[in-house]
Amino acid sequence: MKDLRRKLSGTVALVPTLGGLHNGHIFHLKVAKKKSDVLIASIFLNPLQFSATEDLNSYPIDEKKDLKIFKKNGVDIAFLPDTVEMYGKGISTIVNPGKIATVSEGKYRPGHFIGVATVVVKLFNLIQPHIATFGQKDAQQLQIIKNITQDLSLNVKIIEIPTIRDENGLALSTRNQYLNKAERKSACEIYKSLNMAKKLVDNKEFKTKIITENIRDFLKLDNLISIEYLEIVDPTTFTSINILGKKNLLVIAVHIGKARLIDNIILNT
Amino acid sequence: MKDLRRKLSGTVALVPTLGGLHNGHIFHLKVAKKKSDVLIASIFLNPLQFSATEDLNSYPIDEKKDLKIFKKNGVDIAFLPDTVEMYGKGISTIVNPGKIATVSEGKYRPGHFIGVATVVVKLFNLIQPHIATFGQKDAQQLQIIKNITQDLSLNVKIIEIPTIRDENGLALSTRNQYLNKAERKSACEIYKSLNMAKKLVDNKEFKTKIITENIRDFLKLDNLISIEYLEIVDPTTFTSINILGKKNLLVIAVHIGKARLIDNIILNT
Repeated sequence: MKDLRRKLSGTVALVPTLGGLHNGHIFHLKVAKKKSDVLIASIFLNPLQFSATEDLNSYPIDEKKDLKIFKKNGVDIAFLPDTVEMYGKGISTIVNPGKIATVSEGKYRPGHFIGVATVVVKLFNLIQPHIATFGQKDAQQLQIIKNITQDLSLNVKIIEIPTIRDENGLALSTRNQYLNKAERKSACEIYKSLNMAKKLVDNKEFKTKIITENIRDFLKLDNLISIEYLEIVDPTTFTSINILGKKNLLVIAVHIGKARLIDNIILNT
Repeated sequence: MKDLRRKLSGTVALVPTLGGLHNGHIFHLKVAKKKSDVLIASIFLNPLQFSATEDLNSYPIDEKKDLKIFKKNGVDIAFLPDTVEMYGKGISTIVNPGKIATVSEGKYRPGHFIGVATVVVKLFNLIQPHIATFGQKDAQQLQIIKNITQDLSLNVKIIEIPTIRDENGLALSTRNQYLNKAERKSACEIYKSLNMAKKLVDNKEFKTKIITENIRDFLKLDNLISIEYLEIVDPTTFTSINILGKKNLLVIAVHIGKARLIDNIILNT
């Protein structure tokens, strides 16, 4: 992959994935395809961003299916490195995004964003894309990628891709595959609760405690849902806020069955 | 500077400096000039790599003189960013080289190598050189730059430049300017002591404690010299060793007057 950008002409786009592709990823590919001359997509289930207790080893990947999706969506180069290719016998250098990596999602997945930042810097250096897509579903990851791109002068334009949802509002995620029928029905309550929050804000409720308590009460009605965190945060720092400002983001993580699902909604006043 | 490599043809070399140029830097420029089609040299006194108690504000730079040296030595592009250009209102992302940054020199300058690693990654991303020079005088820095280049897949070849010494063996350093005549004479004892160590090893003394005690006793004879650390380390990990292996590096830091000076010598058996 080395020095690809210097060899390829035109705009090079990268869509980095962990595999387990769904329509959300396909939307990334479509946007990137439109904006580029050469479309590179990667599949790398990055061990650095999974903790020992997480689902690295059971992550539902289907390489053959994923490669077909790449082909169908105009991917020019598929980059599927293995762990040895990426990390050799292991690496000691890490990219640490700082405080933002320790709050909100970062508090519940310690080390996760360091793993993400490190692999993204590596992928950017290996592939040297002009543009790369990241999804708003992983809002904190998106902000962190924007930060490190700026902070380390990475020469890549970050393209934000909106969250794709199914017909019931469930945000598409590879981990939705873990859900059985009943659990999937419960998972749809998440988006309903986010919209409840939005309605409360539209009705001038600006106290985050009241908003989140309302959502907690609503989600408690479903026995299958266990909230890991539910916070309203500053969308650039991801620190919790008590009274809504101009720009706010409600972020949520829940466990349903084997799945840990995250979602978010902008609550601008 | 953005995207320079894509615009320039041929091999782009970078010689990164803190300014305060001396013949050591000139040797870097000469080597880099020979190996490249476009020679870029930078001066950036990186605040991230200085602690609050160090000499950031008194570092002896003479920009006019330095630029003349660049010109005389065939520098095609001089890159002299200011702190705002490099860090804006401050950055939160850092590049952490891991354990190697915490031992030896890193133990006495906490945070130093994180500052170095972060600015080097930034400079590499901004300038995108094919090759870059780093000096063996800063042996641990050199090893760290090699590590991060490998670990983060930075597409830059690191060129090692040997330590340049004056006629008395004193390793050239910008900080030698802090020395008065008597102190400079004392500073020359450092290289003498390194050669003593080499002689001991040539005479089959492989116990590091005995070697370092000999040097300590020798340097104690000079009242102006205060040893900060004196260690024999593994040259790739910079962890201390008790019995010499095949490859060993003696590293030393001393204070003489206002100057903190470092040096090192390979002690291979």
